[in-house]
Amino acid sequence: MSALLEQLIDALRVLPGVGPKSAQRMAYHVLERERAGGQRLSEALAAAVEKIGHCERCRDFSETPVCATCASASRDAHLLCVVESPADRLAIEQATGYRGLYYVLQGRLSPLDGIGPRELGLDRLSERLAQGEVQELIIATNPTVEGEATAHYLAQLARQQRVRPSRLAHGVPLGGELEYVDRGTLSHAFGSRSEMVD
Amino acid sequence: MSALLEQLIDALRVLPGVGPKSAQRMAYHVLERERAGGQRLSEALAAAVEKIGHCERCRDFSETPVCATCASASRDAHLLCVVESPADRLAIEQATGYRGLYYVLQGRLSPLDGIGPRELGLDRLSERLAQGEVQELIIATNPTVEGEATAHYLAQLARQQRVRPSRLAHGVPLGGELEYVDRGTLSHAFGSRSEMVD
Repeated sequence: MSALLEQLIDALRVLPGVGPKSAQRMAYHVLERERAGGQRLSEALAAAVEKIGHCERCRDFSETPVCATCASASRDAHLLCVVESPADRLAIEQATGYRGLYYVLQGRLSPLDGIGPRELGLDRLSERLAQGEVQELIIATNPTVEGEATAHYLAQLARQQRVRPSRLAHGVPLGGELEYVDRGTLSHAFGSRSEMVD
Repeated sequence: MSALLEQLIDALRVLPGVGPKSAQRMAYHVLERERAGGQRLSEALAAAVEKIGHCERCRDFSETPVCATCASASRDAHLLCVVESPADRLAIEQATGYRGLYYVLQGRLSPLDGIGPRELGLDRLSERLAQGEVQELIIATNPTVEGEATAHYLAQLARQQRVRPSRLAHGVPLGGELEYVDRGTLSHAFGSRSEMVD
């Protein structure tokens, strides 16, 4: 087999869920039928990897220092919704009518993996809460063990700064991932979020 | 969402079996965890699309005018195996001990789609058979209606040039259960049963 083809098949395996067989099928498909699309994908990948960084305010992916949502004057700065990943943020944005701001942890507390509050930028989140603009911190971490621990930590952080913490309502299936919850369930859970008390 | 990110998600859908949701998951995965791999994939795609063409002799993918298999002195030039696609060629190469040469149609006869003998390079295949080096043409097109029609055409072509045509055996797949084999296959396998000798 052509060395370049082998390299392509190997490189495709970087994509999640792509094993040797599907990588091979993808490579052949692109070469047989989609060379222009393959070229476009190559350019889109290079541009994304090079230019997409993180928003200074919310840590979501952004190609500008501050992302469009954080820069928007029409979003309600009194509400801040904390999610684990950009995909979770997108799922909430698409499923609900939420008009507040977001904070993307890009992970969850996981001491065994060396991921503590600092790695998630919680020091900067705390400073932001201290500024007094945020009134409610909507905690939308995943309903997993680590997500719940992170939610607990975030609720404490909020209370320290006299910000009201809330969390999504039950209805999100336990053990699931927000990204894969159907819109109706997600919208309902988002609407009936409840205040956290301990 | 970042425009570059949207472009990337859209571009990923060129890959077979990748819908909007998996494209999104792939894009986030690359940006979150595999930027170096994404860069490598971008380069591999660009190089493959630009440099991989077709071997002059067998029409398989190749980055050189003649592919390594066709150029090899250790392959038996008396045997020529015709397959529909590069993936079929690879499957045979990996599964069998075949040491002859290949001819890759890059398709199958399909008059309704405007794919005739010329589009599959059968004029050049005929010339090659006329040269007298090939003694057996092993026809390994897929056992579909169009593949069978193509096999028929190829067998005629071979006989015209006094080359012996052969085809893969059809029958019950190894490791399969009779109960689940389709009727056509079972009927064929039953009809062409062979005597057991030990």
